[in-house]
Amino acid sequence: MSHNLLKGKRGIIFGALNEMSIAWKVAERAVAEGAVITLSNTPIAVRMGELNALAEKLNAEIILADATNVEELNTVFEKSVDILGGKIDFILHSIGMSPNVRKKRTYDDLDYGMLEKTLDISAISFHKMLQVAKKQDAMAEYGSVIALSYVAAQRTFFGYNDMADAKSLLESIARSFGYIYGREKNVRINTIFQSPTPTTAGSEVKGMEDLMDFSNKMSPLGNATVDECADYCITLFSDLTRKVTMQNLFHDGGFSSMGMSLRAMNQYSKGLEDYTDENGNIIYG
Amino acid sequence: MSHNLLKGKRGIIFGALNEMSIAWKVAERAVAEGAVITLSNTPIAVRMGELNALAEKLNAEIILADATNVEELNTVFEKSVDILGGKIDFILHSIGMSPNVRKKRTYDDLDYGMLEKTLDISAISFHKMLQVAKKQDAMAEYGSVIALSYVAAQRTFFGYNDMADAKSLLESIARSFGYIYGREKNVRINTIFQSPTPTTAGSEVKGMEDLMDFSNKMSPLGNATVDECADYCITLFSDLTRKVTMQNLFHDGGFSSMGMSLRAMNQYSKGLEDYTDENGNIIYG
Amino acid sequence: MSHNLLKGKRGIIFGALNEMSIAWKVAERAVAEGAVITLSNTPIAVRMGELNALAEKLNAEIILADATNVEELNTVFEKSVDILGGKIDFILHSIGMSPNVRKKRTYDDLDYGMLEKTLDISAISFHKMLQVAKKQDAMAEYGSVIALSYVAAQRTFFGYNDMADAKSLLESIARSFGYIYGREKNVRINTIFQSPTPTTAGSEVKGMEDLMDFSNKMSPLGNATVDECADYCITLFSDLTRKVTMQNLFHDGGFSSMGMSLRAMNQYSKGLEDYTDENGNIIYG
Amino acid sequence: MSHNLLKGKRGIIFGALNEMSIAWKVAERAVAEGAVITLSNTPIAVRMGELNALAEKLNAEIILADATNVEELNTVFEKSVDILGGKIDFILHSIGMSPNVRKKRTYDDLDYGMLEKTLDISAISFHKMLQVAKKQDAMAEYGSVIALSYVAAQRTFFGYNDMADAKSLLESIARSFGYIYGREKNVRINTIFQSPTPTTAGSEVKGMEDLMDFSNKMSPLGNATVDECADYCITLFSDLTRKVTMQNLFHDGGFSSMGMSLRAMNQYSKGLEDYTDENGNIIYG
Repeated sequence: MSHNLLKGKRGIIFGALNEMSIAWKVAERAVAEGAVITLSNTPIAVRMGELNALAEKLNAEIILADATNVEELNTVFEKSVDILGGKIDFILHSIGMSPNVRKKRTYDDLDYGMLEKTLDISAISFHKMLQVAKKQDAMAEYGSVIALSYVAAQRTFFGYNDMADAKSLLESIARSFGYIYGREKNVRINTIFQSPTPTTAGSEVKGMEDLMDFSNKMSPLGNATVDECADYCITLFSDLTRKVTMQNLFHDGGFSSMGMSLRAMNQYSKGLEDYTDENGNIIYG
Repeated sequence: MSHNLLKGKRGIIFGALNEMSIAWKVAERAVAEGAVITLSNTPIAVRMGELNALAEKLNAEIILADATNVEELNTVFEKSVDILGGKIDFILHSIGMSPNVRKKRTYDDLDYGMLEKTLDISAISFHKMLQVAKKQDAMAEYGSVIALSYVAAQRTFFGYNDMADAKSLLESIARSFGYIYGREKNVRINTIFQSPTPTTAGSEVKGMEDLMDFSNKMSPLGNATVDECADYCITLFSDLTRKVTMQNLFHDGGFSSMGMSLRAMNQYSKGLEDYTDENGNIIYG
Repeated sequence: MSHNLLKGKRGIIFGALNEMSIAWKVAERAVAEGAVITLSNTPIAVRMGELNALAEKLNAEIILADATNVEELNTVFEKSVDILGGKIDFILHSIGMSPNVRKKRTYDDLDYGMLEKTLDISAISFHKMLQVAKKQDAMAEYGSVIALSYVAAQRTFFGYNDMADAKSLLESIARSFGYIYGREKNVRINTIFQSPTPTTAGSEVKGMEDLMDFSNKMSPLGNATVDECADYCITLFSDLTRKVTMQNLFHDGGFSSMGMSLRAMNQYSKGLEDYTDENGNIIYG
Repeated sequence: MSHNLLKGKRGIIFGALNEMSIAWKVAERAVAEGAVITLSNTPIAVRMGELNALAEKLNAEIILADATNVEELNTVFEKSVDILGGKIDFILHSIGMSPNVRKKRTYDDLDYGMLEKTLDISAISFHKMLQVAKKQDAMAEYGSVIALSYVAAQRTFFGYNDMADAKSLLESIARSFGYIYGREKNVRINTIFQSPTPTTAGSEVKGMEDLMDFSNKMSPLGNATVDECADYCITLFSDLTRKVTMQNLFHDGGFSSMGMSLRAMNQYSKGLEDYTDENGNIIYG
């Protein structure tokens, strides 16, 4: 079911860990659509995850790098241009981690050294990536860059903690750099807000399962899957979306536009009182 | 506890019905803050409600008018300027009604004649009011106009039906006319999104009680009350907010900025499974 | 350069007039991507425009209809399902007209009969279309519907007049119906905000040429063209964007995310230098 | 013209420098409205500015502190509670600085050590302030906290550089902490987007004068002044706005809701007429 949407294009995928990762699926779909890619992640992520298997399957090289390290990012871009035989057409940034969340520091008891790390890993790494690419002139004209965000960047969810702040910063960087890189090289830069998915990363957030149930019932189309997210990324890397930039794009089955759905409200009301279900017909609304 | 914030100001309050009405409370507070006002509503609303009692209490005249009728609005402004002894400093538009909601037509089975009425009563009446005021030059320089909206104008709630569309139109009119009236007379025009309140109007929307519970648990400060809304309106009518215009202002205890609160999620989860409450300590988040 | 993104899909394109129309280009691209379509417009538009030529070229039938007329819309859907051999997968709504703009009524001197027409033609027609489709069950599961909007629906531009209000209403209808049609049939409904283009419709708005220059210089990627808009619509009709719904999608080269660009500011500053004030009369707006 | 809106309230004002500072005016107005306050700024700012004069005039103590230093913030709150005789009712955060802007590093050539400082000073200091206050339980129930932001946090302006990112982070912190502090102590937290003003800080941004002209002509009510901003802050510190929280409030004469005004367009068009291109080099931005 390939449409050759990325035929001849070169890309770098940051942050794939295992089959549950959005980045993993994007890598697979990109190659299926005709692209050649490199994969990048940290040494520890490669050890703990299954990136080698993906690399083999896709015939893609892995370039080890800590995305907070400018020197190592320099290497990623140099090597990628070299390996792929030309400038880079698309990039996926799927990197995020909060030591505060890991260490169960609540938002009113943040460790500021850890906050600095959260921001550096989850947001500033995106700026570093773009600045390195631009300084090397490593991106092709009309290239496309995507970073994954959360709805928590715009509304508050309990438990997201400093990741919410990091994602707001990430979205701002996408806008700020989108202006610069757009006017000079026609490179577009967007973030995608994706429905919650059962990734390794997501599972660190408290009560994620119930939240996914809520999100699923709120969204008229249900939660977007990892596969669907990969499809959407392909359209944004393709030449068919050349004037979409500086946006946070919602890929969420409608969640972000909902205030309350009947399904979610029924679920909620169930908890409020003894729920009886005999006449569950939608009669109004 | 008056601060004389509206001392010497003249206002028109549209849409007060009874003590549960926001417009009722705004009228009381405005007079307490030193304003003189007129009250306007339809003949049928005056018969069904208790506006006469309010008028007597506040020593304010009632000017009967259908706010969709330009001629009658002309009369409201002419008489108000005459009675109050000068140009109008502030206006509250608190008018909304959907025949489709009343007749239980669902959103995918709208009667288009009724939709036209919903829009005319709930939104276009606001434009008519402003156009009449401007043509008569009945507003004082630096006047302030507020219309009440719902969050449903920006996000979708089951059951709000064509009222959601009417409120979007209302907010757009506030922006469009805010530009015109601002540049020419420094009149500011805003809408307020207010938490759901147990008004007569609100009770027509299905499941409103449970929705209010959800909204209350989602909002870190809880739902805003009718009295609090009146207080907020006073600040916006006062001279202390002269450069706030063309905004939809959220007066909702934080609801609109929330994606999910712990309280609401606990309630929701309660419906999902057998809830046990023994350790309800917030340990994380 | 077809990617067969719409292979086997059936669509209806409302509002194509001539080669400058976005709807025209979308029709061409949809057929190139493998779709079969019908075209619909009013009898007068077909006489004045060149739709017959397009129909012939694309081997598509024209179904005459006034999109404000429910009966005629019924016919469009019945005939389209019949002609195309099955349920409809995608719809483009590219319809908008303001008699107030045509008659040069300013926004503070609207004719309310004309406003009713503006809203009916430019926004409510979209609801009618969706309601008719749903009642007939004429849309296929996972169908996709797009309506074209303007940035003026969210921010105020001088001269857009009641078209701004109509577009706000249009966007609200997309959200409200997107919820209903999504939860029941997985149909997604979005609006696209497109850069200003030199269409026949656009040229009615005053000073459009200079505004396009401003918009072009503000946007890091420049104004999006009609062809690029058609490409973007194809991605949204395709199966690769199945969880994108209830959104207003910005296809504008970054314009909407910009506050001020260096290019536009330079242009602006240029005018500051030798500013003379002789003819500052507001004639239209 | 005092309304006693802050009678008996205790506040801390961070960031006043001289008479052009918004924080300066807020301090004056707060005291005029009946509040008692302390003032806080860095030793160097106190030396370079005129804070001592303000302190004397308002009979307010200055507590020297670097707002990025948790220990020193601890002292500010301890001393303020002690000096003012009770818990704090309101806080103004008016702190921002970018070493990258000062050193004329463009956004695609950021120094990451400097970026860390920009974020720490301009945004994380706000979190530190709130966390310190909450740990000390130094805020009174129903307290009110305001931080000043820029429109650049939501849209991109050339030259704002990493300050735009810092302000996005600031706004996110306001939301995230607003949830926590709201649900536990009814403390509300908002940011204000204020029109550009001729402050010392603002003058560091390139081309600020022309931008202020543009902003003034775009805004139907013109740019909001420093005095008007102080008035607005008073309403938000008062008890009349107790349910407004987690918002970014626009105090900008309508700027943020405008796409293009007639006045600004006329100005822009003026520059189009005799356009010459000789020096189009991008030197900063």
